[in-house]
Amino acid sequence: MRKLIFLGVGGGAPSRWGLPGILLIKDGFSALFDCGEGTQLKILEKGLGINVDVVAITHMHGDHVLGLPGMIQTMGLLGRQKELIILGPKELKDFLEESFSRTKFEPNFPIKFVDSYEGPDFRIVPFETCHTVESRGYVYEERERRNLDVEKLRAEGIWDYRVFRALKEGKTVQYGGRTLIPEDYLIITKGKKIVYTGDTRPCNNIIEASKNADVLIHDSTFDNNEEAHLYGHSNASDAAEVASKAGVGTLVLFHYSARYTTTEPLLDEALKRFPRAVTVEPLDTVFIR
Amino acid sequence: MRKLIFLGVGGGAPSRWGLPGILLIKDGFSALFDCGEGTQLKILEKGLGINVDVVAITHMHGDHVLGLPGMIQTMGLLGRQKELIILGPKELKDFLEESFSRTKFEPNFPIKFVDSYEGPDFRIVPFETCHTVESRGYVYEERERRNLDVEKLRAEGIWDYRVFRALKEGKTVQYGGRTLIPEDYLIITKGKKIVYTGDTRPCNNIIEASKNADVLIHDSTFDNNEEAHLYGHSNASDAAEVASKAGVGTLVLFHYSARYTTTEPLLDEALKRFPRAVTVEPLDTVFIR
Repeated sequence: MRKLIFLGVGGGAPSRWGLPGILLIKDGFSALFDCGEGTQLKILEKGLGINVDVVAITHMHGDHVLGLPGMIQTMGLLGRQKELIILGPKELKDFLEESFSRTKFEPNFPIKFVDSYEGPDFRIVPFETCHTVESRGYVYEERERRNLDVEKLRAEGIWDYRVFRALKEGKTVQYGGRTLIPEDYLIITKGKKIVYTGDTRPCNNIIEASKNADVLIHDSTFDNNEEAHLYGHSNASDAAEVASKAGVGTLVLFHYSARYTTTEPLLDEALKRFPRAVTVEPLDTVFIR
Repeated sequence: MRKLIFLGVGGGAPSRWGLPGILLIKDGFSALFDCGEGTQLKILEKGLGINVDVVAITHMHGDHVLGLPGMIQTMGLLGRQKELIILGPKELKDFLEESFSRTKFEPNFPIKFVDSYEGPDFRIVPFETCHTVESRGYVYEERERRNLDVEKLRAEGIWDYRVFRALKEGKTVQYGGRTLIPEDYLIITKGKKIVYTGDTRPCNNIIEASKNADVLIHDSTFDNNEEAHLYGHSNASDAAEVASKAGVGTLVLFHYSARYTTTEPLLDEALKRFPRAVTVEPLDTVFIR
């Protein structure tokens, strides 16, 4: 089970939507994607700890990054010792270091800046997106799981655990005069794939990176504004087209402009082109089984 | 009438108290004292515009200043053109410029850094406080108002507006064989004085600066913690003693530690030493008539 907690779902000027911040939680691991002002306050409001393992920032615009210095300072105040892993644009490190120095803060725990992150059974990798400044989206991708079909083996009268182990390791086994091929006895479960675009115009890179994703969280700043692309943003209609071309499971529209007071116009626009589109409210949780 | 709107009343790690931010509003003028993360979001929540005239920062610690880059960016997004006046420590300008540069923001309105501010009938001046880093509090002080006691003059049969004007200008007037002295015909209203300490140990500078203030907003991080002074903070008991020595009207306890879930222990401690102490909740308004 994975949870996506949408701390803030708007973009640009603050509004009732809050500013970008998405928490991904799986098996005690947590990653925060973007960290607009107020993100740590929303984590607090949701009753969660701010002890995230990984922070992944898409680009240096203030609405996506200005909550990070404060959140890291709070981690320090609360006595964090565990290393914090940060993914983001090259300038992020300088921004944080300058901010810490000006505000007289010295982190009492290690901070490591990396380009991509390899977890025990998943990875988080960036891909280039199409905004007005250097920007990247992130793919969270789990490795496929291979479980032995023990019931099938037992039904065929095979109970030897050495055979089980060899098959699980992908080895062909000679047993009782038969040749057992691993593929015949493995249940392969595809890992989940979640993609977050950050701010972007619709572009081919997004479609490529999102191929067959279970969930695509896509910039949907406007419903159908012809100037969206000029500002490096997408309309709900664009997000839906990308989702359709990439064949994703669910499209989550994200980064709503302050001009909207409900997400209805955005959702209506997306549903015309892609049936599995949803919108989210601040503090909503999306469960992915 | 002046209003003090307490946007956030806590300090250090974020909590239900929010982070320091106090809005002073008088006759269409507004000044913001400190700007912790989330201050602009609280202004929004209160239904107010973020079009403040003056921002006054006490010191460079993150909980007092990390909300400022985002708030200024929002002013820009909303098309502000009016000059923004900023008072604060010397490093504040560098902090803001570095932050703007890293987040690709160029303010489209002038920002002026000054040491003190002279309004039409008041001034805001800093004074040194006693924290762990360079820090300053602020005195907001209105000039006294001199209004002519027209009723008294009329009762004495004086109706000549040239006499009125001369008396109001402080000139002694010969009229109908009498010598009219301005002091006899002027109603002098003392201007209001409001003092905000920011973070500080109790110290003589605060008592000096707060002499006869109508309202003193004083650091009251703990109720009665012997380590408070070590961290450059005050207990509620300290704040009460300062208020008493300075002879202030009302003491507002401020900057509550996240360890408190109600302000009762702080208020109880203060009331033992000073009867006119109050505590405030986030978004509370204190009216000063």
